[in-house]
Amino acid sequence: MTPRHFLNTQDWSRPDLDALLESAARFKRTPLGDQLRGRSIALVFFNPSMRTRTSFELGAFQLGGHAVVLQPGKDAWPIEFDTGVVMDGEAEEHIAEVARVLGRYADLIGVRAFPKFTDWSVDREDRVLKAFAKYSPVPVINMETITHPCQELAHAMALQEHFGTTDLRGRKYVLTWTYHPKPLNTAVANSALTIATRMGMDVTLLCPTPEYVLDERYMGWARDNVAAHGGSLSVSHDIDSAYAGADVVYAKSWGAIPYFGNWEAEKAIRDRYAHFIVDERKMALTNNAAFSHCLPLRRNVKATDAVMDSPSCIAVEEAENRLHVQKAVMAALAS
Amino acid sequence: MTPRHFLNTQDWSRPDLDALLESAARFKRTPLGDQLRGRSIALVFFNPSMRTRTSFELGAFQLGGHAVVLQPGKDAWPIEFDTGVVMDGEAEEHIAEVARVLGRYADLIGVRAFPKFTDWSVDREDRVLKAFAKYSPVPVINMETITHPCQELAHAMALQEHFGTTDLRGRKYVLTWTYHPKPLNTAVANSALTIATRMGMDVTLLCPTPEYVLDERYMGWARDNVAAHGGSLSVSHDIDSAYAGADVVYAKSWGAIPYFGNWEAEKAIRDRYAHFIVDERKMALTNNAAFSHCLPLRRNVKATDAVMDSPSCIAVEEAENRLHVQKAVMAALAS
Amino acid sequence: MTPRHFLNTQDWSRPDLDALLESAARFKRTPLGDQLRGRSIALVFFNPSMRTRTSFELGAFQLGGHAVVLQPGKDAWPIEFDTGVVMDGEAEEHIAEVARVLGRYADLIGVRAFPKFTDWSVDREDRVLKAFAKYSPVPVINMETITHPCQELAHAMALQEHFGTTDLRGRKYVLTWTYHPKPLNTAVANSALTIATRMGMDVTLLCPTPEYVLDERYMGWARDNVAAHGGSLSVSHDIDSAYAGADVVYAKSWGAIPYFGNWEAEKAIRDRYAHFIVDERKMALTNNAAFSHCLPLRRNVKATDAVMDSPSCIAVEEAENRLHVQKAVMAALAS
Repeated sequence: MTPRHFLNTQDWSRPDLDALLESAARFKRTPLGDQLRGRSIALVFFNPSMRTRTSFELGAFQLGGHAVVLQPGKDAWPIEFDTGVVMDGEAEEHIAEVARVLGRYADLIGVRAFPKFTDWSVDREDRVLKAFAKYSPVPVINMETITHPCQELAHAMALQEHFGTTDLRGRKYVLTWTYHPKPLNTAVANSALTIATRMGMDVTLLCPTPEYVLDERYMGWARDNVAAHGGSLSVSHDIDSAYAGADVVYAKSWGAIPYFGNWEAEKAIRDRYAHFIVDERKMALTNNAAFSHCLPLRRNVKATDAVMDSPSCIAVEEAENRLHVQKAVMAALAS
Repeated sequence: MTPRHFLNTQDWSRPDLDALLESAARFKRTPLGDQLRGRSIALVFFNPSMRTRTSFELGAFQLGGHAVVLQPGKDAWPIEFDTGVVMDGEAEEHIAEVARVLGRYADLIGVRAFPKFTDWSVDREDRVLKAFAKYSPVPVINMETITHPCQELAHAMALQEHFGTTDLRGRKYVLTWTYHPKPLNTAVANSALTIATRMGMDVTLLCPTPEYVLDERYMGWARDNVAAHGGSLSVSHDIDSAYAGADVVYAKSWGAIPYFGNWEAEKAIRDRYAHFIVDERKMALTNNAAFSHCLPLRRNVKATDAVMDSPSCIAVEEAENRLHVQKAVMAALAS
Repeated sequence: MTPRHFLNTQDWSRPDLDALLESAARFKRTPLGDQLRGRSIALVFFNPSMRTRTSFELGAFQLGGHAVVLQPGKDAWPIEFDTGVVMDGEAEEHIAEVARVLGRYADLIGVRAFPKFTDWSVDREDRVLKAFAKYSPVPVINMETITHPCQELAHAMALQEHFGTTDLRGRKYVLTWTYHPKPLNTAVANSALTIATRMGMDVTLLCPTPEYVLDERYMGWARDNVAAHGGSLSVSHDIDSAYAGADVVYAKSWGAIPYFGNWEAEKAIRDRYAHFIVDERKMALTNNAAFSHCLPLRRNVKATDAVMDSPSCIAVEEAENRLHVQKAVMAALAS
């Protein structure tokens, strides 16, 4: 029997997601519990982390459990993910053994694995996460690969708190691309688009050019969500009209998919769009919008100090909510 | 008074080892306990680890204790192990202080320290482990140095489970060398030879040439064990006759001791023996043998996918048992 | 409301410090408690650690809490500490977000951040610690920056135990510079001078030349302490007269502030003073003095084996006391 995983919010029903958000709200009011008493989670980080690691580790502790932090290739063995391979290269161990053994030790497995950024057709297969889900005898939680579903829940929860209601329908939501000196993955952008449409909001994807539109899989999910939950989806390259009347501005930088593996060319383009920074002038166009970001955020590159330090900024609330929603996810999967 | 350590199974009486295995079986049935309530173990890793670290850390947690993971030279200070040295080199601290201080903080100390592979006459002194044992005021557990006694117990436990009896006498046991692109240490091979003879089995050490026979210390332990516990010991370089009728096939790669520090020369030899891989043809020669390996294992180099994925493979059980036997060792030493 | 931090002993009243030492003595007798039940501390290490990390992590555990260990720039993001910066360099996140978010997850934050050693006028601002204290919504504990207040308490406690009284007034205390092949920071030296004068002892700062005298801020604190608590302060460059009749010899190596960033020049000077090593001849000049050091210590460079292994050496006691005093600090700040 395959265990239930938390790989993407799109795999979960809307009532199940709502139940997670309600559970998270209860954990925010009452942090300690015994839902994980004597239980454990293995946190497998192929990429570094501060918020994710701290929030999962403390979340497990607050519920009576324990998190083990593993960093393959750093303080553990490099791992092979393909099947049928003659393993005479760098990898000392196959994911089949890694996942099966971890699943004997721990009750849950969390995985963070960023794409390698050289070939999106490979990255979009999300094979590290999929391989864990395939071989693990226990539930697997996506701690950010090519999507970031825990961030989605934390973001939705922060918006529900900000607006004082769990019903976010009718809100005008802008997901805006912002400049960053390095190419970043599209995980949080994919996720923001997914959860914002899932909650039935009127969503605008604002980005410099059509090349920055997200992968068709996530655009498709967003359209499916609009069909199922109402709201709307549009793409815009015009800053002022996109911000006009917005209730939510969510910022993120990401790389243009057609340029994956060819960043010199993309850099020449992106360097023309540093003015996508979230600043007071743009925020003044909105309906007193809440501003958020998944963090880490480069101040005065993605958003100005004035925006970050304004009462409208709920990024720290959203970050705090990572703790609560992840406790909800762990408790649900371990029960 | 010197505390009791767990450095090698050969230092422990057979009744005491049997008691550890019984305790481990109880922990497998009933994972949670309070044998380490408020107690702690410092896990000192001079080499990376996944299974060892996870199983010790979760084992301590499940018994009410806490494990601290230290990596000297990585996120702690490099350490001097010789006595009387003027410490004007890289080492910032002497093992005397490290062990004494750790022993003030923690109730147990685990040590992983692989040999350096350049001079076996140095490696065989096992000086890092011995230095901890000398200076520590609390029990020291060998987490793999030039032997791997925790793996021995997990292996013996998996065989007892497989055969449905704690009495392994009369079983035909083959420890087979297998190919690996890099030279590996002899720790698990030394340990397999030690525990297999200790349990009174009929043991064959199968390796390509006499140069791959293990160090005389461990060959001597094996002969002592045969004299004390029955069974037999033989060395073979013939694959088919060694596999014929075997009840257990245990695979491991290791370097040839005469070539330590001269791996180019050894590689020319070992490259002729890639056919030592454990495959279905060889396994068909056995008495429906159980197959195991300590992991990590390079698939299709040490053993084929077909063998690894067969019902005869108990490597994941053995890996799981690391958790249970280590809890037994910690509980015994901390009591 | 700003939380109460533990950045320096000099910020705390003498009765409050005495209460911490009394609390630490109780924890030494009765290690387990629930003062941190369900609570947590984030330990942020910009520099490696063994004692500090182990003692904080186990201390939190013994009081029912949990410590998360973070290493920014290693397994977390590099951090910006200046305000108003356009963050287009290496730093991915600003301390404002790091501290605010950590303070949402954890109840306490510990910070270790050594000076960079290239410009003392920058180092002495202690900006990493100050930035955490500025932005954190929860108490911040100095785990060693340009002072080391936890070490101060452990040191004072070891002296109180050695002399069998909490009243250290009238004791002759020598803080002696010793040789080390590399330049080290002045943190523990600053701290020893601070706490020794705070406890009202007769303190001699023994160092090779006037260039090794400590920063005026700490010399000033020491003079203030003499004025408030009695005792005396003197600087000496003469080994024999400084050791004569001493009750306490505390050794430490540190770099000469005028040579910060110009270590080649300082090395030529310091290489003439290797004879500052603490040895039996010097110790024989004392009043059967207690010898201590904060560890790590290079044997036969800073102190001889004979001194380290003598009954007068209380360095391991002092190291153990780190556990007890830090539990006292955490319990006081978290209450």
